[in-house]
Amino acid sequence: MKQTEVTMVRVYLHEARAHMEELLEYLHDDSKVRGVTVFRGITGFGSSGEIHSSKLIDMSLDLPLVVEFFDAPERVEEIIRELNTKIKLRHVVYWPAKINL
Amino acid sequence: MKQTEVTMVRVYLHEARAHMEELLEYLHDDSKVRGVTVFRGITGFGSSGEIHSSKLIDMSLDLPLVVEFFDAPERVEEIIRELNTKIKLRHVVYWPAKINL
Amino acid sequence: MKQTEVTMVRVYLHEARAHMEELLEYLHDDSKVRGVTVFRGITGFGSSGEIHSSKLIDMSLDLPLVVEFFDAPERVEEIIRELNTKIKLRHVVYWPAKINL
Repeated sequence: MKQTEVTMVRVYLHEARAHMEELLEYLHDDSKVRGVTVFRGITGFGSSGEIHSSKLIDMSLDLPLVVEFFDAPERVEEIIRELNTKIKLRHVVYWPAKINL
Repeated sequence: MKQTEVTMVRVYLHEARAHMEELLEYLHDDSKVRGVTVFRGITGFGSSGEIHSSKLIDMSLDLPLVVEFFDAPERVEEIIRELNTKIKLRHVVYWPAKINL
Repeated sequence: MKQTEVTMVRVYLHEARAHMEELLEYLHDDSKVRGVTVFRGITGFGSSGEIHSSKLIDMSLDLPLVVEFFDAPERVEEIIRELNTKIKLRHVVYWPAKINL
C-alpha cells in the first residue's frame, strides 16, 4: 500500500449562479481531474452582507453547492489557477491529504 | 493570486437535537464567520453506545448534520472556544487549509 | 479544552456498487470508529474513462456517496489497512485534523 500526496479542493457555489455546469465541464473535459463529487447543502450563507435577513429560512432559496475534487498537488495548483482566470470563483478552499494506491 | 491561511471546521450535529439553529444564529449574527454551509447526511452514527441496534436503517431516524465553515485561524480558535462554552458541541473537527484571495 | 489529533477520512463510493453497507457494518461493528457520516452527492465522476458521455445528466444514474469518519491516527491507519484488504476501496482520502475533548 503506497501513500500518494494529493490536494483536496472544495469549491463553494450557489445554485442561483450558473457556474456549476461550467466548472464541471472544465473539470471533466479539460482538466480530467479524478474524483469529483458535488454536494448540495441544506442551508448556508456567504461572506457578510450576502444575507440581509436574520431569518434562516430565507437562505434556502439559493442552496449552496460544493464541488469537491482531489488530484496531485501540482495539477491542482494549475487547475485552481485556470479556474480563477476562467470562472472567477471566490471560495476555493484546499489542503494537503493522502490517498493509498 | 494571494494564498491565505484559513482553518476549516466541521461541526457534527443530529437533527433530533436542537443545536443547529442556535449554532447558525451564532455564526451568522455574532461571529460573522464567512462561508458557512450545512450538509445533511443520509446516515451515520456517533461514538460507541449511541446506536444500540445493528440495523443500519434505524440510524436514519436521526439524520446527521454537518455545519462547515472556514475563517482566519485566530478567529476560528475564538469561535470554537465560544461554541464550547455556549453550545457544548461534542464533535468539532478542524484543520488548516488555504484559500486564494 | 484539550486538543486531540485525529485523522479525517473520506471514502468515495457509488450507489450502484454494493460496498456501502459492508463498509458501514465494518466501521460500526468491528472497528467501532467514532463519528461516521454518510453523504450523498448530487453528481460526480471518477477517474478518466468512467464517464464516456459528456452529458452531465448521465452521471446522476449512479450517485456518489462519501463515507466520512475520524478517529485517532493509529486507529485510522489500521482501519484503512483493513478496509483495503476486505473491501478493496479505491478512493480513500485522509488528512490530519484536530478535535477538542
